[in-house]
Amino acid sequence: MLEELKKEVLKANLDLVKNGLVLFTWGNVSAIDKKFGLVVIKPSGVEYGGMTAEDMVVVDLNGKVVEGKYRPSSDTPTHLELYKAHPEIGGIVHTHSTYATAFAQAGRAIPEYGTTHADYFYGDIPCARSLEISEMEEYEKNTGTVINLTFKDKDVVAIPACLVAHHGVFAWGKDASEAVYHATVVEQVAKMTFITENLTPLTKRLPQHIADKHYNRKHGSNAYYGQGDKK
Amino acid sequence: MLEELKKEVLKANLDLVKNGLVLFTWGNVSAIDKKFGLVVIKPSGVEYGGMTAEDMVVVDLNGKVVEGKYRPSSDTPTHLELYKAHPEIGGIVHTHSTYATAFAQAGRAIPEYGTTHADYFYGDIPCARSLEISEMEEYEKNTGTVINLTFKDKDVVAIPACLVAHHGVFAWGKDASEAVYHATVVEQVAKMTFITENLTPLTKRLPQHIADKHYNRKHGSNAYYGQGDKK
Amino acid sequence: MLEELKKEVLKANLDLVKNGLVLFTWGNVSAIDKKFGLVVIKPSGVEYGGMTAEDMVVVDLNGKVVEGKYRPSSDTPTHLELYKAHPEIGGIVHTHSTYATAFAQAGRAIPEYGTTHADYFYGDIPCARSLEISEMEEYEKNTGTVINLTFKDKDVVAIPACLVAHHGVFAWGKDASEAVYHATVVEQVAKMTFITENLTPLTKRLPQHIADKHYNRKHGSNAYYGQGDKK
Amino acid sequence: MLEELKKEVLKANLDLVKNGLVLFTWGNVSAIDKKFGLVVIKPSGVEYGGMTAEDMVVVDLNGKVVEGKYRPSSDTPTHLELYKAHPEIGGIVHTHSTYATAFAQAGRAIPEYGTTHADYFYGDIPCARSLEISEMEEYEKNTGTVINLTFKDKDVVAIPACLVAHHGVFAWGKDASEAVYHATVVEQVAKMTFITENLTPLTKRLPQHIADKHYNRKHGSNAYYGQGDKK
Repeated sequence: MLEELKKEVLKANLDLVKNGLVLFTWGNVSAIDKKFGLVVIKPSGVEYGGMTAEDMVVVDLNGKVVEGKYRPSSDTPTHLELYKAHPEIGGIVHTHSTYATAFAQAGRAIPEYGTTHADYFYGDIPCARSLEISEMEEYEKNTGTVINLTFKDKDVVAIPACLVAHHGVFAWGKDASEAVYHATVVEQVAKMTFITENLTPLTKRLPQHIADKHYNRKHGSNAYYGQGDKK
Repeated sequence: MLEELKKEVLKANLDLVKNGLVLFTWGNVSAIDKKFGLVVIKPSGVEYGGMTAEDMVVVDLNGKVVEGKYRPSSDTPTHLELYKAHPEIGGIVHTHSTYATAFAQAGRAIPEYGTTHADYFYGDIPCARSLEISEMEEYEKNTGTVINLTFKDKDVVAIPACLVAHHGVFAWGKDASEAVYHATVVEQVAKMTFITENLTPLTKRLPQHIADKHYNRKHGSNAYYGQGDKK
Repeated sequence: MLEELKKEVLKANLDLVKNGLVLFTWGNVSAIDKKFGLVVIKPSGVEYGGMTAEDMVVVDLNGKVVEGKYRPSSDTPTHLELYKAHPEIGGIVHTHSTYATAFAQAGRAIPEYGTTHADYFYGDIPCARSLEISEMEEYEKNTGTVINLTFKDKDVVAIPACLVAHHGVFAWGKDASEAVYHATVVEQVAKMTFITENLTPLTKRLPQHIADKHYNRKHGSNAYYGQGDKK
Repeated sequence: MLEELKKEVLKANLDLVKNGLVLFTWGNVSAIDKKFGLVVIKPSGVEYGGMTAEDMVVVDLNGKVVEGKYRPSSDTPTHLELYKAHPEIGGIVHTHSTYATAFAQAGRAIPEYGTTHADYFYGDIPCARSLEISEMEEYEKNTGTVINLTFKDKDVVAIPACLVAHHGVFAWGKDASEAVYHATVVEQVAKMTFITENLTPLTKRLPQHIADKHYNRKHGSNAYYGQGDKK
């Protein structure tokens, strides 16, 4: 079942490696089939080399495995919380990519310093707080909960990623491929921000009128970047 | 039309990727045919993989598409402002290359600390100011205007690149290939400068007599680097 | 003799290069056959390109060469001290990998800032002191001794690596392959930690309850990461 | 003439690219035939791709071209000053490698912080002063002179490299291949030192007894690293 979606999710997982976002098995991608309410996700701890579409695991929104010979990624409950809260999300990526994870370890949002950031994220990329002792029981599910809490007043389409303090990156998009694209942008923007702050510790944020301009020339009804299809 | 120039522009665009200056579609190269007053430029938001010379777009100096099935790069008006103001420029590159863009995000010129810089740039690589609210209407055209303003008292041949605050890099040369070469030097020099300032925060600029020596041994009538052809 | 183990040790040595941990011949891997009390180790100063399983050297626990046409790695006595003190160790790696060696040069342990670290190391990765003048006679053997001293109150399974001040990294595991895996994690974690501290100099360590959670979801009887086999 | 030496010099030049030490044509290697007092060196400003052994230029110790269709590297007079002053030197490399050049731009020697450094360099890698206005006439020759001045009380065998302030790296060895090896070590050590100082600004130098131990286990009559041949 969902053979096309499995292929997309496999390709997206392999693109994580190709884009330099994961070491070993330290990342995962999922995508949702909204008609059936089923999620296709990478198996847990399986190496990327030799992985096939058949190795992908199908789970329902309660996390029950519907198809697949492997256990799903241990981060599956986090993915599910995001899908349940945000119908706009079609694909989700989790990585420990180097620079973005360093921001997460420092417990900091990635501040919006330039148009590279503004082209894809409307404002800072936030950092969800780390979990309390009382939240450890359902650790992965509660990781999704704190991300959702962080986005209570934010738009997951306008800011398609969130850091989790001390942990790493979750990014998303309309499908698995766009989620990988956004995860790649997060890492590149994190690297540029790191260098920027080293060059000038008191760097000012991008003026709002330029942030607006760049986001809007790529997104929304008046977008004029590209050939008429978003991104 | 302009089939040879299209091939040159395509090759220059692909060299941006090869030289590690662009991620995804975040860069563009153009070249001008001075006889006809026509500019060949990369299409907007099209991926580099599989791009052909036929995909290049031909525009006149008013930005009107003369040939091509795609929309031209959204940065086309910036390129055109530079071509119109500086007849010495034959090719232009725009990138968001990592270290140089960090300087742009910090709103800083790249100071001249060494002979690597002096071999290609006679003095600091300047950073144009970011645009005011009143300049947002024709954003891309005005980006060209502030670069031209920054070069009011500078020589575009002696300093073949300009950062734009909060944005990225524009570099140029006698043709598309030289523009890519200069964009690559900007990134390498930016990286070295970043490391230099980290090592010794109060680094002094290159003494003027060494800057003169290095620039002049590569450029001008007494150049003696290479085999008699500049660069 | 020990042909299978030689192949494993060769592969592990080549993986050091593949994983970007060694330049030239600056690293070595060994593995122990516990039944015979024999150690297979890389020859000293031999280039990785063209190295074969037959080039591996077999030594006993006193460092006597039992088989092999080359001298064993000059670091062999360090490996032997670790094998003799810790029966849990099946394979050992020594590298001068860039970021981890910088921590060693700074004489610092790698602090535990995030879950990437916690997934493989239960607590800081310690840094053994450098050797005193009186310990130079048996330099390599005493390097093993100070590592063992550093682990007097630590568990080599829970923390499978140690820096040596001014020198580099020793990492280990149940076999040569796992030792390489851990050496690769050390380098990646060292890089992330470097960036983290640059972003926020007073970064706080990972809360203990999250460190516990991450280590335990991968290790021990209640582990639920992966497909039921550790790592 | 000197066909074997030309091949060695060509290979050494290509290894500069392979080892990531040069961008474009920003480096050169030479080697000397001591019997004939002739030096083989890379042609000036010629790209590495497609370069053949026949493209190498043969000059005498006065810089006169003895054979070759190209002009020799513009840095040839620097190489010649070093060969004339130091009969121990058989091959010389010049690079603008990133981290080492940043040290040169900062006008700093590379301090000896670890055994990676000590394995190849006995003490700090010095930085020659930049040239005065009065020395610009014979710029390249005088660059050699200030390096020789810097080594007045140093041993070119024990410290086989020198930075030149604001400029870059000169490294050498018994032949072209060893010179490239040393230039590669300089860059790697410079990178590690940069990171080390960032981690702990007041890092102490490697204790002298460890510096002695590491240098001596690789070099001199009591060396025991490798298979009995130096390096």
